[in-house]
Amino acid sequence: MNYHFSDTINSFESSAVREILKLTQGRSIISLAGGLPNEQYFPHEAVRDAFARVFERGSKSVLQYGLTEGYTPLRESLSKHLARKGIKAGIENMLLTTGSQQAIDLLTRIYIDPGDVILVEKPTYLAAIQVFQSYKAKLVSVDCDENGMNLEDLERKIKQHRPKMIYVIPTFANPTGKAWSLERRQGTLNLCKSNSVLILEDDPYGELRFNDTETFPSIYSLDDGPNGGAVVYTSTFSKIVAPALRTGWVVGDKNVILHMTRAKQAADLHSSTMDQQALHELFQQFDLYSHIDLIRTQYESRMREMVRLLQAKNWEGVRWNEPKGGMFIWVEMPQGIDTQELFKLAVEEGVAFVPGISFFADEPQRNSMRLNFTHTDSEEMVLAFDRLERALQRMKTAAH
Amino acid sequence: MNYHFSDTINSFESSAVREILKLTQGRSIISLAGGLPNEQYFPHEAVRDAFARVFERGSKSVLQYGLTEGYTPLRESLSKHLARKGIKAGIENMLLTTGSQQAIDLLTRIYIDPGDVILVEKPTYLAAIQVFQSYKAKLVSVDCDENGMNLEDLERKIKQHRPKMIYVIPTFANPTGKAWSLERRQGTLNLCKSNSVLILEDDPYGELRFNDTETFPSIYSLDDGPNGGAVVYTSTFSKIVAPALRTGWVVGDKNVILHMTRAKQAADLHSSTMDQQALHELFQQFDLYSHIDLIRTQYESRMREMVRLLQAKNWEGVRWNEPKGGMFIWVEMPQGIDTQELFKLAVEEGVAFVPGISFFADEPQRNSMRLNFTHTDSEEMVLAFDRLERALQRMKTAAH
Repeated sequence: MNYHFSDTINSFESSAVREILKLTQGRSIISLAGGLPNEQYFPHEAVRDAFARVFERGSKSVLQYGLTEGYTPLRESLSKHLARKGIKAGIENMLLTTGSQQAIDLLTRIYIDPGDVILVEKPTYLAAIQVFQSYKAKLVSVDCDENGMNLEDLERKIKQHRPKMIYVIPTFANPTGKAWSLERRQGTLNLCKSNSVLILEDDPYGELRFNDTETFPSIYSLDDGPNGGAVVYTSTFSKIVAPALRTGWVVGDKNVILHMTRAKQAADLHSSTMDQQALHELFQQFDLYSHIDLIRTQYESRMREMVRLLQAKNWEGVRWNEPKGGMFIWVEMPQGIDTQELFKLAVEEGVAFVPGISFFADEPQRNSMRLNFTHTDSEEMVLAFDRLERALQRMKTAAH
Repeated sequence: MNYHFSDTINSFESSAVREILKLTQGRSIISLAGGLPNEQYFPHEAVRDAFARVFERGSKSVLQYGLTEGYTPLRESLSKHLARKGIKAGIENMLLTTGSQQAIDLLTRIYIDPGDVILVEKPTYLAAIQVFQSYKAKLVSVDCDENGMNLEDLERKIKQHRPKMIYVIPTFANPTGKAWSLERRQGTLNLCKSNSVLILEDDPYGELRFNDTETFPSIYSLDDGPNGGAVVYTSTFSKIVAPALRTGWVVGDKNVILHMTRAKQAADLHSSTMDQQALHELFQQFDLYSHIDLIRTQYESRMREMVRLLQAKNWEGVRWNEPKGGMFIWVEMPQGIDTQELFKLAVEEGVAFVPGISFFADEPQRNSMRLNFTHTDSEEMVLAFDRLERALQRMKTAAH
């Protein structure tokens, strides 16, 4: 049998991160590559009890088909949770998805025709790039600095490319860990509103804020309200509860949500209502906010450890940011160090990271890398940096 | 904000069935419309215990991200389960999905370019039609009789349209309830193999067989083996365990599965591993085969009840099949009775069904309807038929 695949398969190359994850399974490689939350802080007992309570209620319908929109009581709980963050969204403005990844996929499906332009950050989340490319969007990346998107470059590229959508992760971004300033958030909203560019705000990490004095309102919360708004906002339980439950949500204008819901109906009818019911139970009897505080504290101390290691190593010409939240540090090596080459040596030495090139929609930067600090214990992190150093030395030696 | 949706949204009209489900919620309408399994026969305690055992194992990693392919031990269990049915598939030939609906979506995504032709049964599953249309496939339906697809018409349409794929539900089909003969299965396989037409065999109902003396081998099992084969086979736990767990599987050539896996990675990373782990636990300690026997027996008796009611009513010119398994009876009213018109009167009288027109990719038949017999109790079924009769009488009266 000769198979005749669609054009689309070319955009679905397996992500570098996940291939690395497979590569490192069962080997003694320390991975700073993944975007994994730390299992140590999963609320294991609370989730177990939540599932038990779902069954205790005794209704046979807990196992029946559910609504495509998602389990209504969970949408109600989420609506209240989001209101605390200034995000106004009724249940008619909300769709539950299989992680926020599915929200990115569904919005692209209903909003983007082949050839439409999507603006993205430089760099940005690689699995979003894949989704956009699979729908044959044209991606244009916008210059960024430590405060977010460069508004002049954004305006120029809006005028030049007439994009239909912009995709941003303004709070503790993947891969850079940076948080946009309020001015950049407001400026981006204004520019997009006046040019009818839909903003897809991806916020998986917003709750993982290390410092209580500085807050980062979502772009969605700066807009007028759910209906008729310029922002579609997505987030997930993966980082604040656990990824295995695969429950994300997306909020926005009710017509946008309606079209996404219909697309989801075709894509998979609905996501797991077992998980959704358990998460609703969790909201009832578990102090999610104290739990988030615990994760924040732990992740901050890990971030500080990694920064200390970077400072101690003091590699020549190496720069990094000190993130205010999230899961990643973005490291720039000196020009001329190709981190894809470094990666091969690093894996030989027993340490993995994600080469920065994966995160660029265009004009790739070859000397950067993403390091995850949430999943590796102190001792391993020390070891990881020793290994990284050996790889770096081998690379420099080879260059001479 | 002006929204500029993609062309695709036109194919995502909400399915008639699901809109009817919403309509009937909370009202005293008896629904013969849904495709719902009966909650009475969900293995509630066994599923509860399975979830509990997942947590008892105590590993924190039960809540971590999983592989896109799905939880490996469940794929191993499924591989053995399928072998009992003559379906050879190793774990590298298998992808776990969010219901078999997602398998249909993902295969279409990686296999169909806009304008490609897909052949379907006349009539066929409406949510598959939606998926195919959303990828801008051209659908051509093939004539069918009580034994399956008409092989002459199939051959003619293969030659004429050069289809890339054919979509079939050969065992207790939705909506017709029919089971294809062995000759039609083999004939379809031969024709498709020699013309390089990929067969998507959708088998959600195959286990719900009423009669032990007659077996219906899947088309997949008639082919040479998983790799290089002409058949991609999908099924689900929704009808034999419970739909809320949203776990389906798809098996086929390992390259086809690899491309589907990459597409799934972009679509949602992976499905709920909570559900997958629970289903693996269920396989270990629950007698799934006795449970399936129970469902089969119960559904058969409900089917017989519905047939008795149809016989007793003896409506003029009405014809139906007596299905050998599955969940549906397909009823053809006399020519001139438009079941969409009848539907409106029926809902007024307090009974719902799905008008047959929804299930046709082209050349719709206006006088048919799909009745579900699995979800309605005896007394309600009697009531439902009385109401249906009143609607029918009103329609005839109005016609005069």
